[in-house]
Amino acid sequence: MDRLQFQSAVMRMGRAAAVGLVLAIAALPATVRAGELLPSWNDGANKARIVSFVQTVTDPTSRSFVPPAERIAVFDNDGTLWTEQPVYFQLAFILDRVKALAPQHPEWRTQEPFKSVLVGDLAGVAASGEHGLLEMMAATHAGMTTDEFRTIVSDWLATARHPRFNRPYTELTYAPMKELLAYLRANGFKTFIVSGGGVEFVRVFSERVYGVPPEQVVGSSIRTKYEVRGGKPVIARLPEMEFIDDKAGKPVGINRYIGRLPILAFGNSDGDFEMLEYTSSAPGPRLGLIVHHDDGEREYAYDRKSSVGRLERGLDEAAQRGWVVVSMKSDWRTVYSPPAQ
Amino acid sequence: MDRLQFQSAVMRMGRAAAVGLVLAIAALPATVRAGELLPSWNDGANKARIVSFVQTVTDPTSRSFVPPAERIAVFDNDGTLWTEQPVYFQLAFILDRVKALAPQHPEWRTQEPFKSVLVGDLAGVAASGEHGLLEMMAATHAGMTTDEFRTIVSDWLATARHPRFNRPYTELTYAPMKELLAYLRANGFKTFIVSGGGVEFVRVFSERVYGVPPEQVVGSSIRTKYEVRGGKPVIARLPEMEFIDDKAGKPVGINRYIGRLPILAFGNSDGDFEMLEYTSSAPGPRLGLIVHHDDGEREYAYDRKSSVGRLERGLDEAAQRGWVVVSMKSDWRTVYSPPAQ
Repeated sequence: MDRLQFQSAVMRMGRAAAVGLVLAIAALPATVRAGELLPSWNDGANKARIVSFVQTVTDPTSRSFVPPAERIAVFDNDGTLWTEQPVYFQLAFILDRVKALAPQHPEWRTQEPFKSVLVGDLAGVAASGEHGLLEMMAATHAGMTTDEFRTIVSDWLATARHPRFNRPYTELTYAPMKELLAYLRANGFKTFIVSGGGVEFVRVFSERVYGVPPEQVVGSSIRTKYEVRGGKPVIARLPEMEFIDDKAGKPVGINRYIGRLPILAFGNSDGDFEMLEYTSSAPGPRLGLIVHHDDGEREYAYDRKSSVGRLERGLDEAAQRGWVVVSMKSDWRTVYSPPAQ
Repeated sequence: MDRLQFQSAVMRMGRAAAVGLVLAIAALPATVRAGELLPSWNDGANKARIVSFVQTVTDPTSRSFVPPAERIAVFDNDGTLWTEQPVYFQLAFILDRVKALAPQHPEWRTQEPFKSVLVGDLAGVAASGEHGLLEMMAATHAGMTTDEFRTIVSDWLATARHPRFNRPYTELTYAPMKELLAYLRANGFKTFIVSGGGVEFVRVFSERVYGVPPEQVVGSSIRTKYEVRGGKPVIARLPEMEFIDDKAGKPVGINRYIGRLPILAFGNSDGDFEMLEYTSSAPGPRLGLIVHHDDGEREYAYDRKSSVGRLERGLDEAAQRGWVVVSMKSDWRTVYSPPAQ
C-alpha cells in the first residue's frame, strides 16, 4: 500500500478505524514492516535480524529490553562505513601530503619511502614496511598543532578524488550504513566509531558525514603535548605513536574511551574480530555484524587474500558465533548515495 | 512570592491572565529569576555570572549563541565535585585495599610503603614518595580484570566511611555542583568529568552520583590488555601507568577523549590550571570557574599551602583571566545533601 492508497483508505474508514489500523500496523512483526525501514537495505534475513534486534532491545515489555544508557553501538570505519580500496583513504592522504610537502624536503628525492612516493612507485612504498609508514606518519601527521592538522585534513577532503570513482572520499561512505546509524540513534542508541585510522583524522568528518560527534570517535593516536605559544594554548602533535586501535587494541580502546560494553558491533575485517568477540560474548542481547565485500561491480570484491581489510577468521567463525555476515551485493540496494547535484 | 501566594494570585486572576504572567516571568532577565535556579547557591555575583553565561549561549538570538553540539562542559572531580581532604578518596581506597590484601602478602610487614600503611604511619607512607605510590597502585589497581576492579571499588564505596563526616564517600559530593551539572544538561550541555583520579575508579559511581555516564569520564589510566580466558574475553589491568590526567595532561586528555574545545571548565586546584587556560583562551563565549575551599566549618579551608589540592597560581591569575572564584563559604547555601534517611 503506497501513501495515496493509504490516505484514501483512511478517508473511507473514518478516523477511529484508521487509528486502529495504525495501531495494528505498529503491532506487526518486524519482518513484515521492515520494508519501511532502512530503504537502502534489501529485504531479507539479514535486514530482519537487525530490525528485530533493535525492536527487541527497545521494547520495555521484552525480557531482552536494554535501557537507553546501555545501548552502545560501535562501528569500524575503513571498509565498514566507507570504502578502503585500492588503499586506506588515510594512506591516500599521506601520499598526497608527501607530494605537497616535497618542495620543502629536497632530501626526500633520495630517501625512502619518500623517493618511491614521489615517483609513484607504490610497490616501493610497500617494501619500506612498517618503518616506512611510521616515517611517513611522522612527516605528515606530526609537527603541527591539532588545529592546523584539522585544517590540512579538511582541505584535502574538499579537493581529493578517489582514483576509480572520481568522487570526494567522504561521498564514498555507504548509504545503508548511514541509514543504520540514524536508525539506531532514533532508537536511543549512542553510536561510536572505533577505527584503526587516526582519531583526529576521522573526527574531521565524522559529525558532518555520519552524525557521530568527535567525542564518540575512538581511533589510533599519536602523542600530543600541551603548550602555550605566544599566549595561545595549543596541542602539539609529536612524531610518536601512542595507541593502535586495531585487533586486540579495539576492545582496549572501547574500554578506555567508552568504559561500557557495546551491545552491537559492526566491522568488516579480521582487524575487527576482537571487537566483535568482546561485544558478543557477554550475556544479554548482543549483535555482531560483518560487511562482506563481495560486490566487485559496485565496489570491490575481496576477503581472505586481500592485503587491505583481510577477512578470514571472521568468515570462518561467524556462523558458530552467531554473527551476521552482510553481503554488500545482495543485502544492499544502494552502496553510495548519488552525487550531490 | 511563594508557591501558595502564587496559587491564590492565579485563582484571582483567571487562567488567561496567569499564562500572561508566566510568560512575563520567563522574559525577566537572569539576575531577577536566578533565585529559582540552583537553589543550593546563594544569590550573588557568581551565581548570576553562571546563569547569565548559560542563558546567553543558549539564546538563539544572542551573538554568543553556541549550538548544542558544542556545549561541552568539563569538571574536575577531587575538590570540585566531591571533597578531597584529609586525603584524596582514591588514596583512602588504596590504603584500605593494602590492609585488606595484607594477609596474602606477609612480606609487606617489612616492606615499604606497605609496612607504614599497615601500622597506620601516614608520614611514612608519604616519605615513600612517588615510587611508593606506584608500588601501591600496582598492588591494588592491577592484576585483575576491569570487571573485577569495578566490583572491588563498588564494594568499598558501599562500606567505607569518611573519617571526619562518618558518611559514605559518595555522599560527600557537593549539592551545588550536582545542581549545576543538571542545570547545564537541561540547557543542552554535555557534561564531562576530567579527573586526575583513575578513569576506571571514577566511572564506578559517576553515572549514579553525578549523572555523568562512563563514556563522559576522562581520567588517569593504567595499561590494559585484551585476553580471552577460558572462552571469556576480559580486559586485564597491568601494573604500569599509561596516562596522568593532571596539569598539562588535562588539555591533552580533553583533546584525546573529547576532541572538541569545552566552553566551560570548573576546577579547584592548580592541577586544573591548564584545563581552565585551554578552555578560556579561545575566542567566543567561555567560562572558567574555580571552587575556593574557604569553609573550614562545613568542609575544609585550604589553598596556597596545602599538599592536597594546592591553589596558588589560580588565585593569583583568576581576576586577569576572567575566571570566577567560587567561595564555598559565601556562594554555597548547602555543601552536602542531607544523609538519606
